[in-house]
Amino acid sequence: MTAPSNTYDVIVIGGGISGLSAAKLLKASGLNPVVLEARDRVGGRTFTVRNKETKWVDLGGAYIGPTQNRILRLAKEYDVKTYKVNEQESLVHYVNGKSYPFSGSFPPMWNPIVVMDFNNLFRTMDEMGQEIPKEAPWRAPHAEEWDKMSMQQLLEKICWTSTVRRFATLFVNVNVTSEPHEVSALWFLWYVKQCGGTMRIFSTTNGGQERKFVGGSSQISECMAKELGDRVKLHSPVYRIDQSGDVVVVETLDNSLCSCSQARYVIVATPPSLNLKMHFKPELPPLRNQLINRVPMGSVIKCMVYYKENFWRKKGYCGTMVIEEEGAPIGLTLDDTKPDGTVPCIMGLKRICEIYSRVLGSEEALHPVHYEEKNWCEEEYSGGCYTAYFPPGILTQFGRVLREPVGRLYFAGTETATEWSGYMEGAVQAGERAAREVLCAMGKIHQSQIWQTEPESKDVPALPFITSFWERNLPSVGGFLRFVGVSSVLSTAAAAAGLLAYRKGLLPRS
Amino acid sequence: MTAPSNTYDVIVIGGGISGLSAAKLLKASGLNPVVLEARDRVGGRTFTVRNKETKWVDLGGAYIGPTQNRILRLAKEYDVKTYKVNEQESLVHYVNGKSYPFSGSFPPMWNPIVVMDFNNLFRTMDEMGQEIPKEAPWRAPHAEEWDKMSMQQLLEKICWTSTVRRFATLFVNVNVTSEPHEVSALWFLWYVKQCGGTMRIFSTTNGGQERKFVGGSSQISECMAKELGDRVKLHSPVYRIDQSGDVVVVETLDNSLCSCSQARYVIVATPPSLNLKMHFKPELPPLRNQLINRVPMGSVIKCMVYYKENFWRKKGYCGTMVIEEEGAPIGLTLDDTKPDGTVPCIMGLKRICEIYSRVLGSEEALHPVHYEEKNWCEEEYSGGCYTAYFPPGILTQFGRVLREPVGRLYFAGTETATEWSGYMEGAVQAGERAAREVLCAMGKIHQSQIWQTEPESKDVPALPFITSFWERNLPSVGGFLRFVGVSSVLSTAAAAAGLLAYRKGLLPRS
Repeated sequence: MTAPSNTYDVIVIGGGISGLSAAKLLKASGLNPVVLEARDRVGGRTFTVRNKETKWVDLGGAYIGPTQNRILRLAKEYDVKTYKVNEQESLVHYVNGKSYPFSGSFPPMWNPIVVMDFNNLFRTMDEMGQEIPKEAPWRAPHAEEWDKMSMQQLLEKICWTSTVRRFATLFVNVNVTSEPHEVSALWFLWYVKQCGGTMRIFSTTNGGQERKFVGGSSQISECMAKELGDRVKLHSPVYRIDQSGDVVVVETLDNSLCSCSQARYVIVATPPSLNLKMHFKPELPPLRNQLINRVPMGSVIKCMVYYKENFWRKKGYCGTMVIEEEGAPIGLTLDDTKPDGTVPCIMGLKRICEIYSRVLGSEEALHPVHYEEKNWCEEEYSGGCYTAYFPPGILTQFGRVLREPVGRLYFAGTETATEWSGYMEGAVQAGERAAREVLCAMGKIHQSQIWQTEPESKDVPALPFITSFWERNLPSVGGFLRFVGVSSVLSTAAAAAGLLAYRKGLLPRS
Repeated sequence: MTAPSNTYDVIVIGGGISGLSAAKLLKASGLNPVVLEARDRVGGRTFTVRNKETKWVDLGGAYIGPTQNRILRLAKEYDVKTYKVNEQESLVHYVNGKSYPFSGSFPPMWNPIVVMDFNNLFRTMDEMGQEIPKEAPWRAPHAEEWDKMSMQQLLEKICWTSTVRRFATLFVNVNVTSEPHEVSALWFLWYVKQCGGTMRIFSTTNGGQERKFVGGSSQISECMAKELGDRVKLHSPVYRIDQSGDVVVVETLDNSLCSCSQARYVIVATPPSLNLKMHFKPELPPLRNQLINRVPMGSVIKCMVYYKENFWRKKGYCGTMVIEEEGAPIGLTLDDTKPDGTVPCIMGLKRICEIYSRVLGSEEALHPVHYEEKNWCEEEYSGGCYTAYFPPGILTQFGRVLREPVGRLYFAGTETATEWSGYMEGAVQAGERAAREVLCAMGKIHQSQIWQTEPESKDVPALPFITSFWERNLPSVGGFLRFVGVSSVLSTAAAAAGLLAYRKGLLPRS
């Protein structure tokens, strides 16, 4: 039986942070929205599990930090507290089979050539980022050129040393859960830039991983859902959107029955590729149809290993490990012990205890007491995690339609954000922006009010990153080689010719 | 109202050549299959339009040639005749603003360095292809290395001259309707290999573009659909597949009602990414869920320009133009005049008449009498054309699940073929293979009978491509430079050092 159609002002598809914050704003504006969520829970790519072993654990999006003022505002409104990820003791950099304790955001390097190369790489990425408009990366002066390159190709151009190239690979892996050869250089540079640069995105203290929510990040969605009450419909995957009539008709798989809703406007708050789950009438325009086929989600298994004791802190380690090893399943870990020191735990992106033992030099790491993991690749209604990535060539060709409305459909979801896209913060920005687009279409607000800035959180203020004289002025390896003069340059030329011959395959093949 | 469930032995999703040939074989084996097609027509990515201006025109897949024995067998069975694409007169190579008539598959080059470079590129692609198993490219000895590279990176490694690199870009564009920087080198090399190599895939005479069907390629699907009768259901987009019970339940959007079918087995005969249109219960396994998010379709607008007269033949041109020009919207054209000489027409991939006029040196090209085009990017139920492509890194990570059954779901579609994947031939191979997988699962045939070879077509036999002594033995540019001795090598080194410095950005930036 076709269920009686339910009529709303706005249908929001997706009950993650983005969709819920859109519906919240619409309701606060006096409208009558509904949220259709495919799963049996709200929260999307945030997912807090509660059980007696862990008390609570975030198996999805978890970290927040300074400059993420929108998500911090929501947390404050719902009285969800934050706490700092432990970084009291030393961090560990594991490379060539050895562990080196360090402090600060990036592991220190000792070889002067490597120092120059490392400094130059991160400085160059930030400088390139400055050229890229965060709201329209396809308009960057070198957009076409950088988009044709994979990040791996860019790293090959910039880096002179394998040490730095290896670390840069880890930097890409950890930030966007994909490989340098899979992603467009333009897109990755944009991604880092719209998070505030290499230091902001990668740092724990003063960066994207500074804090977590006490009690878990799903609380934000749960509080919004509670506020929305029975406007949130779980178990409602949308399979059809028909905007050929006077109202938009949205159909959902509602257990064994098909069920219909209708509204004047629709906000689609899912990852772009999940638009493919829906059958559109009329069909989507060609560029959007192509876009949603071309922006896959990253792949990540988040795993939490629980121990009887916080043995790493006793050894003077905070729990952060930066692990560089060919074939190692984990690149970065963070302490995930509760703020009161209970439930000792290490969070890693992908599984295995054996590597922890090697890095921390402790037998205890081999004997966890509990384990939790979440393979985000298996989620039909996420497609992967953390976020969609853009392979080479896609951002410049199709990026401009990312949040372009299609008739009465508007697009939210963290992928459509211009600040902290890929993060919970971006989800809020995108959801509220899409809600205001609808308000504007209804004539309730002016177009100039759609995009709004957010005042800084008082509880979590951002500190600037001060670059030193040397960071700003240290030459690149290339610059250094030019500096040491003509005679050296000639000998370099010989080496370079050898390298070129090698690259061209003259030496290994024939 | 939930429609009464219709019960079948096998439900085939997709009424293109692949799905229809699967259903045809199942019916011939005494089973009771049904075909569910989303559109109002069968044929999928083949699409023959009939009207008085054109008589008939193929706006989708159209070309067939020697070694495509399965599609030729079907055509013979239904008495659909083939005719040769006109290649009587000269082909034209348009480069640097000038037209050069030529004959043969590839335009000739005159600069000896370019000749060496050109010869070496195509020889190398074929040699690399020989290492790649057509049924499992991820098992090639260098699979990982080649998959991490985009085709653009491989071209940069192999080619010494910009002339050859430019031509190679056209070669990629034309064969897979995507850009060298978008596709994995491993995937492209596999694609060319499983079509029979660079000569077979690119040639008109004796190659993939040798012939067309008199009356259009949709006839093949139409004849199969006629044979299947009311087992083919149009207007039936599938949105849900539930294999959690004893039988597989498939639900379709059937105008305003939802409608159900059930069967013991299902064959999904759509491009991989269209699996995303369906909601699965249980969810697809993680690797397949990731795969279908990562293999976008190519982009192409096929356009046919009709003229009063066959003016190009009078000028001694057959209608084939290989167009190399920065920003030109068309790379390759072919004559599309009817076999009896009526309805003079030129087929191009993407639009514009102005370029034809320049290449053919004729005012007449500016005055077409009729125009037909098909933008395949706008098709919700194709996603694009000709075929899915694999961006770097995807084939080795996810390729192995391309045709791996999921419970009682089996996978057809030209993308899952091992010979002429991407072509009508591959669609038949894949459809029949999937049908035999189901027969095997039912215990009706032995596993060794699933994969079957096809006898050669008597009407369209394949000729070998004979490579000349020089094609086999001409050195590469690199090999030649080594050959001319140490003193030259040293001067090359200086140039190479300059080039390296350029590449590293020492010269243009600082």
